[in-house]
Amino acid sequence: ARPPKTENVIFGKRGMRLEDAINESNEYYREHGSAVVYKKPTPVQIVHVDYPARSQAVIKEAYFRQPSTTDYNGVYQGYYLDFEAKQTKNKHSFPLKNYHQHQIDHFRRCLAQQGICFTLMQFADPNCVYLFPATALLRYWDDTTGRHSIPLKEVARVGYKIAVGFAPAIPYLDAVDALIAATHPQNSKGTIE
Amino acid sequence: ARPPKTENVIFGKRGMRLEDAINESNEYYREHGSAVVYKKPTPVQIVHVDYPARSQAVIKEAYFRQPSTTDYNGVYQGYYLDFEAKQTKNKHSFPLKNYHQHQIDHFRRCLAQQGICFTLMQFADPNCVYLFPATALLRYWDDTTGRHSIPLKEVARVGYKIAVGFAPAIPYLDAVDALIAATHPQNSKGTIE
Ligand SMILES: [Mg+2]
Ligand SMILES: [Mg+2]
Repeated sequence: ARPPKTENVIFGKRGMRLEDAINESNEYYREHGSAVVYKKPTPVQIVHVDYPARSQAVIKEAYFRQPSTTDYNGVYQGYYLDFEAKQTKNKHSFPLKNYHQHQIDHFRRCLAQQGICFTLMQFADPNCVYLFPATALLRYWDDTTGRHSIPLKEVARVGYKIAVGFAPAIPYLDAVDALIAATHPQNSKGTIE
Repeated sequence: ARPPKTENVIFGKRGMRLEDAINESNEYYREHGSAVVYKKPTPVQIVHVDYPARSQAVIKEAYFRQPSTTDYNGVYQGYYLDFEAKQTKNKHSFPLKNYHQHQIDHFRRCLAQQGICFTLMQFADPNCVYLFPATALLRYWDDTTGRHSIPLKEVARVGYKIAVGFAPAIPYLDAVDALIAATHPQNSKGTIE
């Protein structure tokens, strides 16, 4: 497999990359007891490791493996969250080629288990971030009429705009609340003793 | 950080390691649409990558990082699952030193978010596997009277024995059902449209 692509569009005025901004937000949410979400490590196939005396093990040969899932998952108020973050320099639409088949398949399986699945879409110029539900992404993915991107208008209509800030940088849980209210209206959950 | 320890106790008659048996069970559950659970990749800090022309990228220098979480997580019927698998050659008790502080901290945070958290404990001789709830593990961990292991009797009393089989090798979802019935009795969940 190829190494994971570095996201090159910088995030907002602080010059943060999208992934770093999300990791920082996850840390904020963990520290405040709001949610427990992590980015999954890049899967690597380790072939050779050196164990020099008195020092740290060094991986000397390894290869990137194809991930099977999306980048982020975790738990929020009893809900399983699963999402992928993507960005585009396009101004008016979000290209579907940003997604990979394994991510789509993973979303389908997690939705069948009642997971809360979405993608964070960043438009670089002007900088804005939307939470876009995986159910809507799958409708576009399965659309065989040949559309290869989602118009920004549709992203704005179906998705939830995230008020990008400082702490956390990407307060996506507000949008998750809105998504849950729309998809799980009658939910009432027990608590663990 | 050190490389992750290889689990050396082989699993049952088929000579499978515990981790492989769990991975195989997770695959079975995914294929049957029962749950979506994965082992997280080993976190690695990549320092140097070679990109030979016309061939695959090779990682030439990298280091093991300390994980922040447990090994497995995923989604099952709307529940967030989070667990760690451990084994012992002891016959009559399970040593607490098998667990690390970061795993305990992670359990605490996930439980606060209403995750279903547990550990799969394998006793090698005679071979048997229990699902032991994280809430009970935390009670032992926090016990300051100096007990450093959990008696097998207690594991059997508080935990759920897993009927080790072939497909899946470790049918832990049966025990998860029992754990959910005990901890979330009044649960009723909405479904995604
Ligand atoms: Mg990504
Ligand atoms: Mg482990």
